[in-house]
Amino acid sequence: MESRAVKWWGWGWEDRSRPVEGLPVLWRYVQERLKLDSAVRRRVPPIEQVRIPPSLLSPDELAELEKLVGEGNLSVAHEDRVAHAVGRSYKDLVRLRSGNLYRAPDAVLFPEDEDSVQGVLELARRRRYAIVPFGGGTSVVGGVEPLADGTYAATLTLDLRRMHRIKGIDDLSGLVAAEAGIRGPLLEEALNAKGLTLGHFPQSWEFSTLGGWIATRAAGGLSNRYGRIDDLVVGLRLVSPARAIEVRPLPGEDHGPDLKELILGSEGTLGVITEATLRAYPMPSTRRFGSRLFRTFGEGLAALRAMARDGSLPDMTYLSDEEETRFAAAQAGVAPGRPSGAGMGLALKILGTRGYSLQQGSLLLMEFEGSSTRVAHRRRRAVRMAVSSANLGSGPARRWHSERFEMPYLRDSLIDHGVLVDTVETAASWSNLPTVYRAGGKALQEALWETCGAGLVLCHVSHVYPDGASLYFTFFGKSTEGKEVAHWEAIKDAVTTAFVDAGGALSHHHGIGADHAPYLRRVIGEDGLVVLNALKRELDPEGIMNPGKLMTGSR
Amino acid sequence: MESRAVKWWGWGWEDRSRPVEGLPVLWRYVQERLKLDSAVRRRVPPIEQVRIPPSLLSPDELAELEKLVGEGNLSVAHEDRVAHAVGRSYKDLVRLRSGNLYRAPDAVLFPEDEDSVQGVLELARRRRYAIVPFGGGTSVVGGVEPLADGTYAATLTLDLRRMHRIKGIDDLSGLVAAEAGIRGPLLEEALNAKGLTLGHFPQSWEFSTLGGWIATRAAGGLSNRYGRIDDLVVGLRLVSPARAIEVRPLPGEDHGPDLKELILGSEGTLGVITEATLRAYPMPSTRRFGSRLFRTFGEGLAALRAMARDGSLPDMTYLSDEEETRFAAAQAGVAPGRPSGAGMGLALKILGTRGYSLQQGSLLLMEFEGSSTRVAHRRRRAVRMAVSSANLGSGPARRWHSERFEMPYLRDSLIDHGVLVDTVETAASWSNLPTVYRAGGKALQEALWETCGAGLVLCHVSHVYPDGASLYFTFFGKSTEGKEVAHWEAIKDAVTTAFVDAGGALSHHHGIGADHAPYLRRVIGEDGLVVLNALKRELDPEGIMNPGKLMTGSR
Repeated sequence: MESRAVKWWGWGWEDRSRPVEGLPVLWRYVQERLKLDSAVRRRVPPIEQVRIPPSLLSPDELAELEKLVGEGNLSVAHEDRVAHAVGRSYKDLVRLRSGNLYRAPDAVLFPEDEDSVQGVLELARRRRYAIVPFGGGTSVVGGVEPLADGTYAATLTLDLRRMHRIKGIDDLSGLVAAEAGIRGPLLEEALNAKGLTLGHFPQSWEFSTLGGWIATRAAGGLSNRYGRIDDLVVGLRLVSPARAIEVRPLPGEDHGPDLKELILGSEGTLGVITEATLRAYPMPSTRRFGSRLFRTFGEGLAALRAMARDGSLPDMTYLSDEEETRFAAAQAGVAPGRPSGAGMGLALKILGTRGYSLQQGSLLLMEFEGSSTRVAHRRRRAVRMAVSSANLGSGPARRWHSERFEMPYLRDSLIDHGVLVDTVETAASWSNLPTVYRAGGKALQEALWETCGAGLVLCHVSHVYPDGASLYFTFFGKSTEGKEVAHWEAIKDAVTTAFVDAGGALSHHHGIGADHAPYLRRVIGEDGLVVLNALKRELDPEGIMNPGKLMTGSR
Repeated sequence: MESRAVKWWGWGWEDRSRPVEGLPVLWRYVQERLKLDSAVRRRVPPIEQVRIPPSLLSPDELAELEKLVGEGNLSVAHEDRVAHAVGRSYKDLVRLRSGNLYRAPDAVLFPEDEDSVQGVLELARRRRYAIVPFGGGTSVVGGVEPLADGTYAATLTLDLRRMHRIKGIDDLSGLVAAEAGIRGPLLEEALNAKGLTLGHFPQSWEFSTLGGWIATRAAGGLSNRYGRIDDLVVGLRLVSPARAIEVRPLPGEDHGPDLKELILGSEGTLGVITEATLRAYPMPSTRRFGSRLFRTFGEGLAALRAMARDGSLPDMTYLSDEEETRFAAAQAGVAPGRPSGAGMGLALKILGTRGYSLQQGSLLLMEFEGSSTRVAHRRRRAVRMAVSSANLGSGPARRWHSERFEMPYLRDSLIDHGVLVDTVETAASWSNLPTVYRAGGKALQEALWETCGAGLVLCHVSHVYPDGASLYFTFFGKSTEGKEVAHWEAIKDAVTTAFVDAGGALSHHHGIGADHAPYLRRVIGEDGLVVLNALKRELDPEGIMNPGKLMTGSR
């Protein structure tokens, strides 16, 4: 896993990119909408030019730490410190590119086992080192950034990548136990060899880790079928500065308040998740795709709701609003205003006469998995619930599936061309979803026009529940050099406030981290915060775990 | 709801009973197996003869309390104090019948709103009154018994039955908000009027309350389809002595550790649950039943596992082991050793030639709900997964369904005849289920022979998960007058220890209460207990909430 290099300045593998120039129809459309200056090119400086403060750790301290984690498992190399200084939000990437990082961990540790983690935490208590647990580093809410203030002696980032062992697979029960640093592909490969799958495929899947998923309550693209990571975890271990919590993997336990649910979403503020036991499911024998076009996003939402209430949701549903449908059409080569191109022209012309349009409509992508009879049954039900839509065949959904881990690469290319681009997400009940959708969209549009002079806001629903759904917004504007972070912060504040004001969730699966922490009080209340802080005091009396995040970042 | 009287000394409605003499084949079988003395009759004393200590509350104190809850909402009547002194375990019922209760609440309060609850808690903090929240009083683990020691000034039981309002139904989202004291039928009726159902039908459904379900993490008979109460609750309010926690009803929230999961299962030790918002589902248009007979319990378990792994579980599954299948046959009039009676004779004779027998086999009852196509699909899959079994038609499952709330009445009749009878439950992963099943059965048998000179132990699986299932044991012995509690405690300790030693759950859906509290440390660890106690200190600094239960009852 470690041999293939990842970008320090952007998303994913160093040897992979997705230049927006390769999507000429889309690129022209975005340039027009955002009033971009086509001459702009934003460069990435050499990593050596990225300025970070010197490490606060003395050679003696470093030697002591290396003894705890083992030789070769500690680094103060410039590259490692930069690579662990931020996550992967737009704010993070533009700061990396600016060459000015105000903070970086004073050392990066790569423990190989739980004992090492425990040893480091014990020393950190005594020395007042802040600890930042680090999985894949793909946080988009500031979850892995060192935010310790001057009251700490130093910040140690604990990168768990060397704790990636499978501890056991129980075929009969469909359970897998693994160390927290394991990434998606390695875990999935081990399960596939036994005919099992975890069914957890977040967009960050190639890079993010089991521990990171649990710490942030991640959700994957097939959550309709397999649930969120919350539903997959049945047991786990948390090593805290003052305690160690082990939750035994038992189905249907009834042991009072659920300690597992305290650790899920704890984002490194309570301790380090060292291993977990998860449900795994038989690999599907059949996989089918379907794509439908609704006249409006509202009609599409009504169909999703009907499927959810019927208990026959497709295993993956991805419903784009009208703006995102236009964007997807442009991506597929169908120019806005011109229903042609990419072999879809004739079909779209015919659909157009029936009132459907990729320029106005709402695209639903579906995936069905499992036994052939299950797939056949669900497909029939889905078509019945989506009766008001036109069939676009399997192509669009199949294409989405094959490219589902590729989209973040496009972001780097857009940033190169001076685009401000990021995503935000929320969730709401069916009855409140239109309100939250309108409020979020309006807030983004207004903030984008204010900061960037124009804006493009897309939205889709990708996680559906019986009582509601998530909303995932992607937004674009023209960036102003030197103002990227300020503009991003203004937009982020506007949309987050709008979500919460409208009764939406503060976050659906990105978590709280540092960026959402200031709003936490509004959603869980003063007394909710007090309870979280009481828990933290018990597990982490000195407050060394991931300062500035979640409850400790609340204002 | 309150107009129909309930038994103070046994289960359920005063005007309903189920004498074992009405099941002559079964009764003969039980008498033989337990070596019962057929002349024994245990009487119920008049309620006036039940001895409880005098109330510790002075007239001034009572007047002050009544002011807080409103006139007519406080009682120190003997009948009310006795009715709130214990739950409904065998231990509880024999103590009621003995006429000697060592404890009873010093007053029973019937608050009509959350403000009253808050007012009482505030006063209780100052006066050091212990508070026992009380829903339907159907706890079988000592959850509602006043266990305050001499350090408390008095014990107040808060009976929430007058907080039974529906606060709102959101049809579109399928959400219902209600006060915590509402019972199953009233809530279900309101939902049915809107074409919705909660789908939560525990055996205590007619008497138990929304707040009680949440406080104990209840599971109903259709949990395969609708999940446990844990899966239905999306929002709630908890009023604690020091705090008030409100969890907003949002689908797919990601706000860090889940406060809802701290309140679920808290059994009144953290505060009083005053209202909740739950998912509700469309009422099923179709309901079908099916019954299958496996050659062995092991074959039946394998079929349940296959259904769960296939994602096509029937909405209700109830699989009896060989002993319980024999018991069920006797209940239906088929005498052990004589395959005849009740119109099933010929069918059973034919089955017998194929190697199936109600005397040796394992009975699976199934219920299917939903749209007709869903039901048809699931029935087909279930038959396919249960291919090694014989079809017994819909009759047995249909009969079970119509009598599912009746079984506890039979217990009272058996107690009349000197039978020690109770139930215990656990859960385990598929791979560990046989071990836990054998260990639990063996412990019960040995303890029953030791205490009662003979024993009859039945077991079934009624809640199935992808990774495992519950085990529900019913056990019978001959009781010895005056030794009922001691014998029950010896048996309970033996089987609980066996469950935990074998790696099973301490409880699947009965909760911890006072009876399981001494074992809690073994399943959540010392550090888990410390965390629960930290939580309690924050919400209930004076420790007035339900003393002796859950974490406060742990040794």
